[in-house]
Amino acid sequence: MSSEKGMLIVLSGPSGVGKGTVRKAILEDSAIQFKYSVSMTTRQKRMGEQDGVDYFFRTKEQFETEIAQGGMLEYAKYVDNYYGTPLRYVQQTLDAGTDVFLEIEVNGAMQVRQKMPDGVFIFLTPPDLASLRDRIINRGSEDQSTIDKRMDKARQEIKMMSNYDYAVVNDQVSNAVQRIEQIVRSEHLRVPRVIDSYKKMIGDN
Amino acid sequence: MSSEKGMLIVLSGPSGVGKGTVRKAILEDSAIQFKYSVSMTTRQKRMGEQDGVDYFFRTKEQFETEIAQGGMLEYAKYVDNYYGTPLRYVQQTLDAGTDVFLEIEVNGAMQVRQKMPDGVFIFLTPPDLASLRDRIINRGSEDQSTIDKRMDKARQEIKMMSNYDYAVVNDQVSNAVQRIEQIVRSEHLRVPRVIDSYKKMIGDN
Repeated sequence: MSSEKGMLIVLSGPSGVGKGTVRKAILEDSAIQFKYSVSMTTRQKRMGEQDGVDYFFRTKEQFETEIAQGGMLEYAKYVDNYYGTPLRYVQQTLDAGTDVFLEIEVNGAMQVRQKMPDGVFIFLTPPDLASLRDRIINRGSEDQSTIDKRMDKARQEIKMMSNYDYAVVNDQVSNAVQRIEQIVRSEHLRVPRVIDSYKKMIGDN
Repeated sequence: MSSEKGMLIVLSGPSGVGKGTVRKAILEDSAIQFKYSVSMTTRQKRMGEQDGVDYFFRTKEQFETEIAQGGMLEYAKYVDNYYGTPLRYVQQTLDAGTDVFLEIEVNGAMQVRQKMPDGVFIFLTPPDLASLRDRIINRGSEDQSTIDKRMDKARQEIKMMSNYDYAVVNDQVSNAVQRIEQIVRSEHLRVPRVIDSYKKMIGDN
């Protein structure tokens, strides 16, 4: 199966569900061979951040040139700054047979789905809306109308689940990580991903 | 997720690949909650076999009545005897929320795919054709032309893999069992299987 291409794994879900924490835990698990795709941004570099590690830091003009040239797998603008995933790194890593892991917002995930329908799209969900609400409140920095807005957004995003392949409940980070790892191993056994190497085995390729 | 229906898991693959051994190992694993579907046959009951445990033993007339009434999920005739899977038991078990496990020949699996496309179809493969050949020879009872015929059949059946969802290599029984169990857990997280319970959670159902 060494001729098999890498697999693109996209983790997304409502804001506040804990995507970043789950992503960090997955990438710290040495049993897993993912490459994490470094994002590109136009926001200011913060203390301790390194270009090419935390983000690729670019000017607004450079980022807009990438967009115009079709160089972004997905991107979005938040508060005057661009954030996105450069296509080239993802494509090269997949071609080399290594899985690529993206953790992105739901809008970005839908852009990726358009461009790379073979990817595995995983939707991280709260055990229930109440726990999502708790987590948002416990961040402490939001007023009631912000919280209400986030709840409505979450409701909308959960409806978006139908665009994903898998739904993983984030009841505990370690459980969510284990489920995602099972999905990845299982997806590597899917016939469309391995059929070519079998055809070679029986001399039909 | 208690409202979720059971899942049909179909294990098939070329003759000689070791389907029966893998099936037995899976059903002995207490971590797994499958119901194994007892087959129906018209062949003579052998010493020690029990009706309803090893097979449902029926007359040729009874079996043909079941076929005529649409009561068989799949069936085949080998050497003048019918073998098949009664539909009723499978349907009732799935409706009760329990997974059903079938281990059947490739022709039967394709009949099931027609009737129950939501099932999970797993193709068990030899690590390579040479090892399949070894296993067939080691059974001892076949002459060269029988072996050649089986090899051709295996080649055809491997081509049939494209009709399955997953390909699991039977390099070691314990590995094959682990892969199948991962597939089953992972399939239970697929969005089409769980979306209704999520819609209920947000009050949309």
